[in-house]
Amino acid sequence: MHATPPNDERPVILTGDRTTGPLHLGHYVGSLRNRVALQHSHRQYLLLADAQALTDNAHDPAKVRSNVMEVALDYLAAGIDPNATTICVQSALPALAELTMLYLNFVTVARLERNPTIKDEIQARSFGRDIPAGFLCYPAAQAADITAFRATVVPVGEDQAPMIEQTNEIVRRINRQVGRGLLVEARALIPAMGRLPGLDGRAKMSKSQGNTISLSATDAEITDAVLRMYTDPDHIRTSDPGRVEGNVVFTYLDAFDSDREAVADFKARYIRGGLGDMTVKRRLATVLCEIIGPIRERRMTLERDRGYVLEILRSGTSHARDVTTATHTEVRDALGLFSF
Amino acid sequence: MHATPPNDERPVILTGDRTTGPLHLGHYVGSLRNRVALQHSHRQYLLLADAQALTDNAHDPAKVRSNVMEVALDYLAAGIDPNATTICVQSALPALAELTMLYLNFVTVARLERNPTIKDEIQARSFGRDIPAGFLCYPAAQAADITAFRATVVPVGEDQAPMIEQTNEIVRRINRQVGRGLLVEARALIPAMGRLPGLDGRAKMSKSQGNTISLSATDAEITDAVLRMYTDPDHIRTSDPGRVEGNVVFTYLDAFDSDREAVADFKARYIRGGLGDMTVKRRLATVLCEIIGPIRERRMTLERDRGYVLEILRSGTSHARDVTTATHTEVRDALGLFSF
Repeated sequence: MHATPPNDERPVILTGDRTTGPLHLGHYVGSLRNRVALQHSHRQYLLLADAQALTDNAHDPAKVRSNVMEVALDYLAAGIDPNATTICVQSALPALAELTMLYLNFVTVARLERNPTIKDEIQARSFGRDIPAGFLCYPAAQAADITAFRATVVPVGEDQAPMIEQTNEIVRRINRQVGRGLLVEARALIPAMGRLPGLDGRAKMSKSQGNTISLSATDAEITDAVLRMYTDPDHIRTSDPGRVEGNVVFTYLDAFDSDREAVADFKARYIRGGLGDMTVKRRLATVLCEIIGPIRERRMTLERDRGYVLEILRSGTSHARDVTTATHTEVRDALGLFSF
Repeated sequence: MHATPPNDERPVILTGDRTTGPLHLGHYVGSLRNRVALQHSHRQYLLLADAQALTDNAHDPAKVRSNVMEVALDYLAAGIDPNATTICVQSALPALAELTMLYLNFVTVARLERNPTIKDEIQARSFGRDIPAGFLCYPAAQAADITAFRATVVPVGEDQAPMIEQTNEIVRRINRQVGRGLLVEARALIPAMGRLPGLDGRAKMSKSQGNTISLSATDAEITDAVLRMYTDPDHIRTSDPGRVEGNVVFTYLDAFDSDREAVADFKARYIRGGLGDMTVKRRLATVLCEIIGPIRERRMTLERDRGYVLEILRSGTSHARDVTTATHTEVRDALGLFSF
């Protein structure tokens, strides 16, 4: 299933998700859709990052575990082909822990603390100094993930770019020490499409804020969510001129409606006045139902065959174990550690 | 070789050494001698802590590697019986890295920084904020070591006692979360004999300060070292009264000379006046040559058969891998992570 031809020269992509909840429309547009598009032109690994999820969810491992399955269902339902993409479970790959422990010696505490992603998340989660040590260390863990798969392309949001830079610093430090290009540097692939705002217009979609649409939403749920969407608060009567910037309905149309002309026409009429919110929302609801419908149906079918999904995880994790163990062995040998 | 009878109820001891240099007389009196004495009444694991050595020696892994063999030679030469004690290599035990990564989520950065051992060592090594992250994390790694072997007794110097307390905090936190006594708490076994001072009277013996005697020293080297020892600077002529407190020669006689009466008699005569430094030093040199001689001889024999020593490490590490992997699997299952 995962036999890679020895002369496979496609670039290696590593990406994945923390397993803290099922995926939603924000993940679809921000990453899932790209992964489906890239999975044949690239050698793609999707990491179900349960170990990383534990860095701030150690009190609730049951949630982390059950979402391994939920996210895997989302992947497959969205069109990830397990014959093309390797889906694997992070905590079941010992080489990632071993490489992390090694890399932690090549990065200072001060450097980890300066990582802007870590800084921001510490602030956003109001962790203060009481952050779990695992959370502080996660840039090193991410460096282990990326390098273990020898990934050269890592799709990340703009805010995650410093993580890739930190990985490359560790790569360069180790390569300099062993005197050769043992590990490969990776580059961030930042999606053209920025982050999708929440239904309420907030910058971030998140299940906990109830401002998102899940990939298993029914048509009624989708329509209901769209009707609640934030538009232009000054656009009261249909005849009023309206704003499309910051208007979530138009942002979503831009993201999801493939009929660019129809969207441009809607925008012009909305700005001029004479187009009601309800008309635009109905169109968006139709577009989203068409996208989510088939995902939801596939998801429901897969949910009834969890044994099949588990088998995909088992097989993918086994292949990933071979790949990551080979890298760890190379690093260990290059540093001259014992191997028994 | 390492088959443990299923009803083996001897307490489990975990101890070991960072592999940064061969052992010396300070190790012999502070730990090695006790390990030889305890290896039959206890189930004893000796960890060659190369991964821990890397936390502040990542720039010189070759030193760390070569000292795995040097320390193993010291163990065997000093009387560690590989049929009674399991000698194993830390970096070759993936479960230790995996447990460390888990435990890092159960301890905050603030708590690691408050660890007095970490605090002191940061100060002593003038690391400042630029400590390697692996060094800050090493209390969690030590908790992984101790719990992975289910050790209940951990011989440590007095200054290391807070490490055991930190391990037990993690044990209690995880046991509370899983609602049962999954991991066992350990107690520090603090040796009756305090730390042996250096030849120059400094508190700490260390190879880098040239104030120690190695376990492979020749009789001439031992005698020469003893003659250089710090005594009582005010004891100039044989007839002068002398001090035995702080007098390294007498501290060493207390530690090594089994003839307590002879030592008591020497002390009385020295205090009174009439006993020259040279006489006392000659006695100490004889005593030390008698102790080190057989160790040195065994070490030389073993050095000629490194294949045999490697086989002991391989076999011990293999046994330790079984033990530690079993613990990691139990922890992973109890937390409910996936296992593939």
